Amino acid sequence: MLNYHIKPEPDQQRLLLLDQRLLPGQEQYFVCRNADDVVQAIREMVVRGAPAIGVTAAWGCWLAALRLEMDGLDKSRYWEPLLNEALQKIAQARPTAVNLAWAVNRMREAWVDLGAPDLASLVKAWQAVAEDIHADDIELNIRMGGHGAALLEDGDTVMTHCNAGSLATAGYGTALGVIYAAVEAGKKIKVIANETRPWLQGARLTAFELQKAGIEVKVACDNACAILMQRGLVQKVITGADRIAANGDAANKIGTHGVAVLARHFGIPFYMAAPFSTFDFNCASGKDIPIEERAPEEVTQFRGQQIAPQGVPAWNFSFDVTPAALVTAFVTEHGIFKPPYFRSLKKLRERAGQL
Amino acid sequence: MLNYHIKPEPDQQRLLLLDQRLLPGQEQYFVCRNADDVVQAIREMVVRGAPAIGVTAAWGCWLAALRLEMDGLDKSRYWEPLLNEALQKIAQARPTAVNLAWAVNRMREAWVDLGAPDLASLVKAWQAVAEDIHADDIELNIRMGGHGAALLEDGDTVMTHCNAGSLATAGYGTALGVIYAAVEAGKKIKVIANETRPWLQGARLTAFELQKAGIEVKVACDNACAILMQRGLVQKVITGADRIAANGDAANKIGTHGVAVLARHFGIPFYMAAPFSTFDFNCASGKDIPIEERAPEEVTQFRGQQIAPQGVPAWNFSFDVTPAALVTAFVTEHGIFKPPYFRSLKKLRERAGQL
Repeated sequence: MLNYHIKPEPDQQRLLLLDQRLLPGQEQYFVCRNADDVVQAIREMVVRGAPAIGVTAAWGCWLAALRLEMDGLDKSRYWEPLLNEALQKIAQARPTAVNLAWAVNRMREAWVDLGAPDLASLVKAWQAVAEDIHADDIELNIRMGGHGAALLEDGDTVMTHCNAGSLATAGYGTALGVIYAAVEAGKKIKVIANETRPWLQGARLTAFELQKAGIEVKVACDNACAILMQRGLVQKVITGADRIAANGDAANKIGTHGVAVLARHFGIPFYMAAPFSTFDFNCASGKDIPIEERAPEEVTQFRGQQIAPQGVPAWNFSFDVTPAALVTAFVTEHGIFKPPYFRSLKKLRERAGQL
Repeated sequence: MLNYHIKPEPDQQRLLLLDQRLLPGQEQYFVCRNADDVVQAIREMVVRGAPAIGVTAAWGCWLAALRLEMDGLDKSRYWEPLLNEALQKIAQARPTAVNLAWAVNRMREAWVDLGAPDLASLVKAWQAVAEDIHADDIELNIRMGGHGAALLEDGDTVMTHCNAGSLATAGYGTALGVIYAAVEAGKKIKVIANETRPWLQGARLTAFELQKAGIEVKVACDNACAILMQRGLVQKVITGADRIAANGDAANKIGTHGVAVLARHFGIPFYMAAPFSTFDFNCASGKDIPIEERAPEEVTQFRGQQIAPQGVPAWNFSFDVTPAALVTAFVTEHGIFKPPYFRSLKKLRERAGQL
């Protein structure tokens, strides 16, 4: 399991993040020493993947507090508003994945629970909370994998979109966690990694970690999805998710919705794997999920080289919303949830102790 | 109209091809002096697009004969087998687009019609035939555009996949020809160009020629197709085709099938524009159309840089087959043909004088 990509170093007063923009070519760390570094790392996709962003945000809150302490603000009356401002910045670094706000909220609640701690106590307490969130994420991915592995059969070729693996979480992964668990259970599974333009998380990251894990992986352009399904080369599709509404509509990496429509067209099961922290019951449906639009240059340029003619604009939605009706089942750490979702997701909330 | 990309120079005994691999960054010609150069240009995608490949192949036959003449083989008994071998190589440079074989067959028939010409006479006669094929292609695209323009309404945003424009033909274009004709008829049309991985013909070529023509174009990753349709940002889809079977199943650039499924899912008309030479009545259905598979490095590398990890394989089908049932209508130089295709494509053959 690849688990050295989110690496807090309390003794060095820093957080190291494996720079995922440079994978698979280089393994190089991006060093965060304060909240602004963490916001930059999330916004510029040094780290990406909803659960990984959540874990990073938790460490970011801790780092923000630690920085204020190191800067000698513990005796000043300014550390609280400054810390609140840092938390807000972290929570708003990217809009779509709900795990970001979820993690910052958990840190905030821990602060509230402490009453009115001094800064040093808060730093210490937050380190423990961030460690918990970090360790929990790995553990719940392993549980999720255990539930989901039952959906995959020996000999299946599974298509996945973007990267919902170790690199998208604290470790193990959501969609890839299901695949890892099936392989650990002795099933032979092959994977098709959609390359996932414009950031190529599939070609770069999913292929990278599956190759490391010794699982047979083949990359394909997103455009190849239909022919691969038409030719019977895909038995199951499984992806992660960035935010799932109360009715089961699910935001995930741009292109996921198209893959889901094709899976339905060709009669192939389409699963999404995500922890409970990805479900946002404040969103009634997909219409309530904010969809990030990023710079057009991410589409019109490639590593600094112009692809499209100068001056031609581009659409660059970072996510799309797959309607619940296209999702065969959700895999979570609390089990597998099938339609009708208005009923089954209520059961999920009960099991998670939130209802 | 961009029409300087296939440029025969009889006085210089050569054929110039604008190197489409370098667009939009550089406008540079690839010089062909013999049949092997032409085969290389087609195989390596200096020139691409079914009709453009056909026109290039016609000029390639002429160049092959001219080369043999220049090399003094006109008095030898070897020029005929050598020329036949060159023609066969040209016809087999790429497998999917039927226009290639169609053009070489037209040249062969002209040779047969001449009885047993000497090489010099054949070269002269073939120059005229190639000129005809070249000029006909532009003219029939303009006719096709005239028929197809009626399908587009003032204010439409039209999505297209790959490049089926001037650069994919001798000039004007098939799918883009329809758009040019609609604009010339006074309609305001915007275009979304799917970037079309792995070769990016949409981002590079379609955007390039529409920008030159002053038509508003916006590039999008192939992954954005579903969200753009879902949000009502696309009113029509129109693409070219590389080979259309007797039942209306149509091969076109990889990804087209997926776009057609999505168009159907979202209730958006999906048109294909292609000349009669693209219809292959020897293929009963799409199953009979050979689908080219190209080197995996076209997917795993980008301009020499590794995208996916070393050693990870990739699928790289160059085309897929859109089932006839997903095609709202075919636009041809002989008019518009709608389902049921077993009946309407018979009418097309009649109008083309082939039945």
